[in-house]
Amino acid sequence: MPVDLRLYAIIDPEHAGGRSLPDLARLVAEGGATLVQLRDKVSDTRAMVETARAVKAALAPFGVPLLVNDRVDVALAAGADGVHIGQTDMAAEDARRLLGRNAIIGLSINTVALAEAAPIALLDYVGIGGVYATMSKQQKKAPIGVEGLRHIVEVFRRRKAGFPGCAIAGITAANAGATIAAGAAGVSVISALALAPDPAAAARALRAAVDQALAARR
Amino acid sequence: MPVDLRLYAIIDPEHAGGRSLPDLARLVAEGGATLVQLRDKVSDTRAMVETARAVKAALAPFGVPLLVNDRVDVALAAGADGVHIGQTDMAAEDARRLLGRNAIIGLSINTVALAEAAPIALLDYVGIGGVYATMSKQQKKAPIGVEGLRHIVEVFRRRKAGFPGCAIAGITAANAGATIAAGAAGVSVISALALAPDPAAAARALRAAVDQALAARR
Repeated sequence: MPVDLRLYAIIDPEHAGGRSLPDLARLVAEGGATLVQLRDKVSDTRAMVETARAVKAALAPFGVPLLVNDRVDVALAAGADGVHIGQTDMAAEDARRLLGRNAIIGLSINTVALAEAAPIALLDYVGIGGVYATMSKQQKKAPIGVEGLRHIVEVFRRRKAGFPGCAIAGITAANAGATIAAGAAGVSVISALALAPDPAAAARALRAAVDQALAARR
Repeated sequence: MPVDLRLYAIIDPEHAGGRSLPDLARLVAEGGATLVQLRDKVSDTRAMVETARAVKAALAPFGVPLLVNDRVDVALAAGADGVHIGQTDMAAEDARRLLGRNAIIGLSINTVALAEAAPIALLDYVGIGGVYATMSKQQKKAPIGVEGLRHIVEVFRRRKAGFPGCAIAGITAANAGATIAAGAAGVSVISALALAPDPAAAARALRAAVDQALAARR
């Protein structure tokens, strides 16, 4: 499915700044988020499903799709729009088989070798990074930087024209434009939205930075 | 689906006595296990799916079904026969909807109130306990004992004749018979098999104790 990656908000109970996840989803959607991912590494399955349903309901008025990190079971039970999988999550072929062709499936990529190997026929997008240093996730590898992002984007450009990649990690309104200039179709953000005093305003600022950089690229 | 609970072996990478889970599954099936559950609270999703596939292949020659604890996604991806869900796992109605009517679905029950509330039309069996003290799982509640098991079995007997319940926690060849005498259809075992020097022999001994008690009940 075509997917709008311009402002891809990840919401996570461990990085929610004290807000409920449905509230946070609504705020970022109000501010212009184009895609939301629920990432929950701590809750029981039943609570995950309930949260996913509540977030899906919060996003419905905005027409913003919801993806679930890793958990195909939660996505299926809650009627989410797809999943984002990492390299140690379910294999893309299994996720596609279980979710069907209309689901959105994205995969994390942090090296050129993984970009070359990525099963793009099974995917709708890739998340590329960590581009910058982040506080939201323990980074085992050094950030790839804008140059690393550019190399990976070029692999996908060569493999399939128009296949979209989203820049992830440490992205703010100040540095988002550089990732778009390097070829990203959008930015994926946790802290810059969730920990902002006003997540809707933070989303508007990020979305404006992305839109401006996309316009400059054309 | 009708399910044979006589000797229900739970295999868990945290309690495997240094053996691979497919090896352990094969050994307990050789010794007479009638059902196997893969319970993995630590691995990444991809590794869980790979392990579930390998265990399923190890059990295939014995015709012993494989259930996955909690993870409907892993069960679906690996082609397992169903799931075992706890009270904080996916709701039975969601699990049944995702897995279909031919899957085996079991639910953990440790009180009479939960037994009264259990959605038995959606379930194939219940796991009742912890009956005795166990080392394989952190027990937040005191063991219910054989008398607690008997009270819960009576609830299910009243609600639906023949609906099977399996006794779980701390069960050995020495105390298995008492759980069957109290009305359990079988016993669910981790340590008594996985940590035995010879899991196949331990399974044979447990299965003999169960079969003897079932025969005495008739």
